[in-house]
Amino acid sequence: VPSQTGGERRYVAVVGPGEATETELSLAAEVGRLLAERGAVVITGGLGGVMAAAARGCTDAGGIAVALLPGGTRAEAHPHSSIVIPTGLGELRNGLIVRAVDAVIAIGGSWGTLSEIALARRTNVPVTCLGSWQVTRGSAEPVDLVRADSAADAVEFALAAAGS
Amino acid sequence: VPSQTGGERRYVAVVGPGEATETELSLAAEVGRLLAERGAVVITGGLGGVMAAAARGCTDAGGIAVALLPGGTRAEAHPHSSIVIPTGLGELRNGLIVRAVDAVIAIGGSWGTLSEIALARRTNVPVTCLGSWQVTRGSAEPVDLVRADSAADAVEFALAAAGS
Amino acid sequence: VPSQTGGERRYVAVVGPGEATETELSLAAEVGRLLAERGAVVITGGLGGVMAAAARGCTDAGGIAVALLPGGTRAEAHPHSSIVIPTGLGELRNGLIVRAVDAVIAIGGSWGTLSEIALARRTNVPVTCLGSWQVTRGSAEPVDLVRADSAADAVEFALAAAGS
Amino acid sequence: VPSQTGGERRYVAVVGPGEATETELSLAAEVGRLLAERGAVVITGGLGGVMAAAARGCTDAGGIAVALLPGGTRAEAHPHSSIVIPTGLGELRNGLIVRAVDAVIAIGGSWGTLSEIALARRTNVPVTCLGSWQVTRGSAEPVDLVRADSAADAVEFALAAAGS
Repeated sequence: VPSQTGGERRYVAVVGPGEATETELSLAAEVGRLLAERGAVVITGGLGGVMAAAARGCTDAGGIAVALLPGGTRAEAHPHSSIVIPTGLGELRNGLIVRAVDAVIAIGGSWGTLSEIALARRTNVPVTCLGSWQVTRGSAEPVDLVRADSAADAVEFALAAAGS
Repeated sequence: VPSQTGGERRYVAVVGPGEATETELSLAAEVGRLLAERGAVVITGGLGGVMAAAARGCTDAGGIAVALLPGGTRAEAHPHSSIVIPTGLGELRNGLIVRAVDAVIAIGGSWGTLSEIALARRTNVPVTCLGSWQVTRGSAEPVDLVRADSAADAVEFALAAAGS
Repeated sequence: VPSQTGGERRYVAVVGPGEATETELSLAAEVGRLLAERGAVVITGGLGGVMAAAARGCTDAGGIAVALLPGGTRAEAHPHSSIVIPTGLGELRNGLIVRAVDAVIAIGGSWGTLSEIALARRTNVPVTCLGSWQVTRGSAEPVDLVRADSAADAVEFALAAAGS
Repeated sequence: VPSQTGGERRYVAVVGPGEATETELSLAAEVGRLLAERGAVVITGGLGGVMAAAARGCTDAGGIAVALLPGGTRAEAHPHSSIVIPTGLGELRNGLIVRAVDAVIAIGGSWGTLSEIALARRTNVPVTCLGSWQVTRGSAEPVDLVRADSAADAVEFALAAAGS
């Protein structure tokens, strides 16, 4: 653990489904690695798929990954996080993840992921999407979700938006 | 309060933005009224706009409306609910609303509303939308949000889906 | 439901163990009845024992009782509440109960009850105890938990402290 | 960060008041140091007093301390934690702390501390007290809170109870 204290770091959530495609898993691992190299703490939901890949990418590169689990026990966590917090809040932990971070990177498209994107936008936490949801308000106008074309772009955007 | 106990009733959330159009407010009030007439408890987020209109429609028709507020004090509630619960959970109360109900009716399109739609889908709570969000997964295929054309249709769908 | 709106009512939590003595159950039922007669909403944790007795006393007297359950489904609720909210928060719902009320009446002494007494004192919600815990800080000095000798005294204290 | 993953570590909460005596602060720092030397993660409420002293003792000895703050921003955290999570849950974060750990060490006696002791006992998380609360059920019998006479004894008990 470097000398920087926990309050001074940047925190970025990597959110995405527990069942993901190879492309999504690969992107998640690269995002995790790049965030670690930039000194950001990676927060995930602690389960499999995108969450596990991002945490593994982060900790394999020497970074710190924190898992905020929906259930009440650490047993369900993937084995790639530095710190595992079982919240017991069920899906409400999605809001806890968003609240804890300076930016969100969304990879892939489950309903849980969409809830995190929406909660982030609701609370002015910057979000960037890698192949995730497109959303439109009822009538017509498209809504301005930031999209990245690569893991590097997503990390660049997230850290710039997070103010570091 | 009729003889039916609280555990036997049907609970329906009416979710939507605190700032809404006249059409949305009118739909919300009608949805609230129809739910009251069918004996369902209406749960809202307790603030203005769609939330206040739905609660007013419900209680004006003799129904029971429950407000689950994001803040920690009842002072911020609209004056139309039978019961006011300040949760102090901030945006996490969106998840509490979804968890408490048998069906969700979404009217209009704020980010908070989208988070409730997504949390409901994530946890298999039936949702129907009146002029609310349209969502698409990254690539192409549209996603099957149920849409209603009228307050009556929305209520019919919600109660049918809720099993009453 | 009378014309008074939900934001204007007084809310009082009746907290106590799910397994209780006959004396405790009798006190809880009387407290529930007296609170109903005074127009206060009774909030309980929604399970058995003291919680069920207080809710039954309240609703049998025409009052409104709200159950805030620890689990995520209404199935576990006692059948005596007007409104049943499954929070899915586990023991964290104890804090939600305290946050929602103007005063707490504690009857009997489980650990869950003690957590509610302590959270209430921590957040300046008035508490009165009917045969519940006695607590002392490490060294010596006794701590000033208000104690009542009867259901009537407990209700009197709670409503006075709640400002009604 | 050593090779052990976050799910395999032992987690111990050190709970106590934000305003504490010199003796309590000294005990908290020693407890934090000893837990770090034994490889346990220290979780605190992230504010001052006992919380800050325990985290400082831990991180000064090369350990990992996690702060679970009541508020929604990292700004209120003490500067001694490795990881800072703003929960925005207010006093409900006391329950989150208890849920996240294998054992609790309570130092000193605020109402918040008592709520954590009670929640831990309620959910079968082992607790040991250093000069903290004494509690008695209404009638007479004293209740079996484990007490330690020194920081070393408290840590020994906590880690033994946590199964490591």
